[in-house]
Amino acid sequence: QQSFANEQTEELRNIIAEQQQTLTELERRLDETEQRLEATADAVEESDADNSAVTIGGYGELHYNNLKDNDSGSSKKEIDFHRFVLFFGTEFTSKTRFFSEFELEHSLAGDGKNGEVELEQAYVEHDISDTVSGKVGLFLIPVGLLNETHEPPTFYGVERNPVEKNILPTTWWEAGAGLSYAPAGGWAIDTAIHSGLDISSKGSYKPRDGRQKVSEAAAEDLAFTGRVKYTGINGLELAATYQYQQDITQGGMLADGSVVDTASANMLSAHAVYQLNQFTLKALYAQWNIDGAEAQALGRDKQDGFYIEPSYRINDAFGVFARYNVWDNNAGDNNDTEVKQTNVGVSYYLHENVVLKADYETQSGANDVDGFNLGFGYYF
Amino acid sequence: QQSFANEQTEELRNIIAEQQQTLTELERRLDETEQRLEATADAVEESDADNSAVTIGGYGELHYNNLKDNDSGSSKKEIDFHRFVLFFGTEFTSKTRFFSEFELEHSLAGDGKNGEVELEQAYVEHDISDTVSGKVGLFLIPVGLLNETHEPPTFYGVERNPVEKNILPTTWWEAGAGLSYAPAGGWAIDTAIHSGLDISSKGSYKPRDGRQKVSEAAAEDLAFTGRVKYTGINGLELAATYQYQQDITQGGMLADGSVVDTASANMLSAHAVYQLNQFTLKALYAQWNIDGAEAQALGRDKQDGFYIEPSYRINDAFGVFARYNVWDNNAGDNNDTEVKQTNVGVSYYLHENVVLKADYETQSGANDVDGFNLGFGYYF
Amino acid sequence: QQSFANEQTEELRNIIAEQQQTLTELERRLDETEQRLEATADAVEESDADNSAVTIGGYGELHYNNLKDNDSGSSKKEIDFHRFVLFFGTEFTSKTRFFSEFELEHSLAGDGKNGEVELEQAYVEHDISDTVSGKVGLFLIPVGLLNETHEPPTFYGVERNPVEKNILPTTWWEAGAGLSYAPAGGWAIDTAIHSGLDISSKGSYKPRDGRQKVSEAAAEDLAFTGRVKYTGINGLELAATYQYQQDITQGGMLADGSVVDTASANMLSAHAVYQLNQFTLKALYAQWNIDGAEAQALGRDKQDGFYIEPSYRINDAFGVFARYNVWDNNAGDNNDTEVKQTNVGVSYYLHENVVLKADYETQSGANDVDGFNLGFGYYF
Repeated sequence: QQSFANEQTEELRNIIAEQQQTLTELERRLDETEQRLEATADAVEESDADNSAVTIGGYGELHYNNLKDNDSGSSKKEIDFHRFVLFFGTEFTSKTRFFSEFELEHSLAGDGKNGEVELEQAYVEHDISDTVSGKVGLFLIPVGLLNETHEPPTFYGVERNPVEKNILPTTWWEAGAGLSYAPAGGWAIDTAIHSGLDISSKGSYKPRDGRQKVSEAAAEDLAFTGRVKYTGINGLELAATYQYQQDITQGGMLADGSVVDTASANMLSAHAVYQLNQFTLKALYAQWNIDGAEAQALGRDKQDGFYIEPSYRINDAFGVFARYNVWDNNAGDNNDTEVKQTNVGVSYYLHENVVLKADYETQSGANDVDGFNLGFGYYF
Repeated sequence: QQSFANEQTEELRNIIAEQQQTLTELERRLDETEQRLEATADAVEESDADNSAVTIGGYGELHYNNLKDNDSGSSKKEIDFHRFVLFFGTEFTSKTRFFSEFELEHSLAGDGKNGEVELEQAYVEHDISDTVSGKVGLFLIPVGLLNETHEPPTFYGVERNPVEKNILPTTWWEAGAGLSYAPAGGWAIDTAIHSGLDISSKGSYKPRDGRQKVSEAAAEDLAFTGRVKYTGINGLELAATYQYQQDITQGGMLADGSVVDTASANMLSAHAVYQLNQFTLKALYAQWNIDGAEAQALGRDKQDGFYIEPSYRINDAFGVFARYNVWDNNAGDNNDTEVKQTNVGVSYYLHENVVLKADYETQSGANDVDGFNLGFGYYF
Repeated sequence: QQSFANEQTEELRNIIAEQQQTLTELERRLDETEQRLEATADAVEESDADNSAVTIGGYGELHYNNLKDNDSGSSKKEIDFHRFVLFFGTEFTSKTRFFSEFELEHSLAGDGKNGEVELEQAYVEHDISDTVSGKVGLFLIPVGLLNETHEPPTFYGVERNPVEKNILPTTWWEAGAGLSYAPAGGWAIDTAIHSGLDISSKGSYKPRDGRQKVSEAAAEDLAFTGRVKYTGINGLELAATYQYQQDITQGGMLADGSVVDTASANMLSAHAVYQLNQFTLKALYAQWNIDGAEAQALGRDKQDGFYIEPSYRINDAFGVFARYNVWDNNAGDNNDTEVKQTNVGVSYYLHENVVLKADYETQSGANDVDGFNLGFGYYF
């Protein structure tokens, strides 16, 4: 019995010794695994430090226009890589980030060339609290539907709508400082003090001609912009922007040195987007009121326009739209200077970020044009 | 004996208790390791999602030319960072991708400056099947040896060869749509319909002057290109490209408004590359036939050229070459307008993607020039 | 007793069996963990191969100037995104690397626009040994405090100092080849042979006007630069640069074809930086001696300047400085052409790489200007 007990103990001893070997082996393997994991995690961290700090993206759009001016009889058949854009951004901290947009227009820039290279965004944004953030630098004015979001797959039609081009004037950026407040409930308020327009270089009093693009820009007088946006109801977006320009002649001196009116200006724009399943309706109104006798003499003391755009996204691949635009850069005079433009077309999405577009266009009122446009765009 | 058995059992009990401690400790460590690994794997995935979508590369070349024109007695000693190029690309899906090439020429672009900023490629390519792919956007014309592949370490000689510059005219890009078919056996067929040349801006009828670079390009008339390439035999590449231009005056109107011939044009080019161990032989021929009385009057109804280039790659670091070029942009007249150019030189590869080049150059025929060129190039 | 021993053995047997289960389970889990770790490490490696090859960064600065010229009574109120810069680099091997700097000045470049696109750096550097490295390409001249390091958070004041702008002339890049030697003990020697200045385009004999920016640059005559730098004492940096230009008229011919003096030139610059806790003192001197009767007639045979800048970094967020600058581009004549400029200001660091700046400026001597500057800058 003693020997039996001994045998049993011996057997257990052997089992325990084997287990001990297994344990030692497991400990060794786990040591190795932990070391390996440590090294891998370090590599990930290092790789992240190298790379994830800088984010890069871009978009582009190629346009073909085939339009006939029925007044003059001339026609425009043109192909143009209108915009090639790169984004560069980084996160300094989780609360502080940089974003920039660098653009080549018309595919070619240089002495005697059609295009130009532009810096359209370059600002640092800082979260002051959960609901308040500030920014400083060169940024897009918070107005309209296209000015801040204009990647080709996000809008219908080959060309951007003429109201946001000729009245607002998109793409519109200035340099300064902004403060944004987004309390709960779908409200968002954006304000900014920034460089102003300067129509004195061309003397036309058209807002689009006044863009200085923060390139050695005259800064005698500044401007203020405020926007209220509401997205608290599912499928609905409402927004209104007000802007005050102290003096859009930047001190009352034209490029040739002649003295002109100082001219303060007020801009008001509002838009609505309503989406119900595949159906979307967009509408936008914009107007300028410009002071001074010269603006009045040109009929440019008032300039305004609107458009309305119903669209239907048939499926992932196809969407159709119609857009009716009316605008007038001489709304302040009694002449018939209003232009009406209608576009009807289709978008084909090869991928959610790659789009081919076609639309039919007709202009009436002060213009008499018709034809069609083809487009290709991408976004990454 | 009983106490002996008890002692033994007690001893085993102690061992087992120790093992139990070790086991518990191992379990705890493994729990931790698993959690840590989970976090690390998530970080890798996130990092990949952030970064690997966008690929970036580029190339550049710095040239020094020391050439003497023996006719005029004048000499050119010049240093120029001829090309600084960046590539930006992304994969939308495994079948759909974007690629672009952005270039600064001559190191400086702006009003009154020598250089320009160019978009040379920006297209989306989509694999329709295993053998068929399509593309749309702005892309390089599939012709010759340099037009699609021109990173400095991939060719011999500081400057690109004059035949592909003056006849083809490389670098040559247009906007449109293409279809490629690559069945088995080393065959590849590339076709494209795209924007055409427009010589009306300069009226010279030289192909190089007709490049519109997709910058608000006149598109009265389009062009078609087709290439057949065969690489089915090891070390051998054969290719031929045909192009038809509907009208290289884009509607028969010069820049000054005067009416000219409409002029359709045909381009034919073929090349061969044969590589046997360190020895490579390249040969290329290209010609244009241009319709219309005006082209004929200028002797530019026919323009052609060829070159032949034997080279020998001594080792990883050194390669030597000779290139004999003949071309004539006025092959249609009876004057002695043909130019012959010979280059003999060496490339030193500091790295497979970093090259220093030197070559001796002599021109005869319509020109009488000799001298040498030094170059530095990189590719990443 | 026997049964007691059996009971005890049975109990141990059960414990051991349980432990065995735990062991088997641990082994299984460890197997899985090892496999998972293997896969994760592979993913990290692949991700690194994809991404870490190319590094991207950049900096930018937005300036507002409000300066009054008390002589003419005119004032300048201007806002300008002066510099938007992107860096692209890669490592070919651990010893061979590429670096480049691409810049858009004044936010807008094209025909009739204020700004320009510039390539400021594009070179390959190769470590020949632990202490010797060479480079070839387009690089910054090793001189002064700002020329090689000019990211906005690294210097005080909205605008760069006028001495390094008007005398040195920063930012100053040329193309050529360089050799650097950094033995132990804090010594570093940098030498380069490179393209030279060409004042013949403007005929002003001012160094800043002679920058050809490696854009089809006249290279009749080259230049040599050598710098010795010592940083062997903690907190102290001493450096001196000498440059010899063979002929800053590049062959004695002005842009209009008229023949001028050939004019060799010597540049000498030295600077010191001393940092003690939060206090830093910087001082720099630079001078040119230019040969030839024409330079002498213009009083530009000698041009020189210096500045001294004490600063105090109050904490992570704030720093204050004063800078006193004196320079004279006509030091060779007897007229009172020297300008004195004093700047006093503050920098606020939102983040170590994001800075807001303000400074008061006054110029006396040949100029009579005062006013203030505001700035925003970032670096990533």
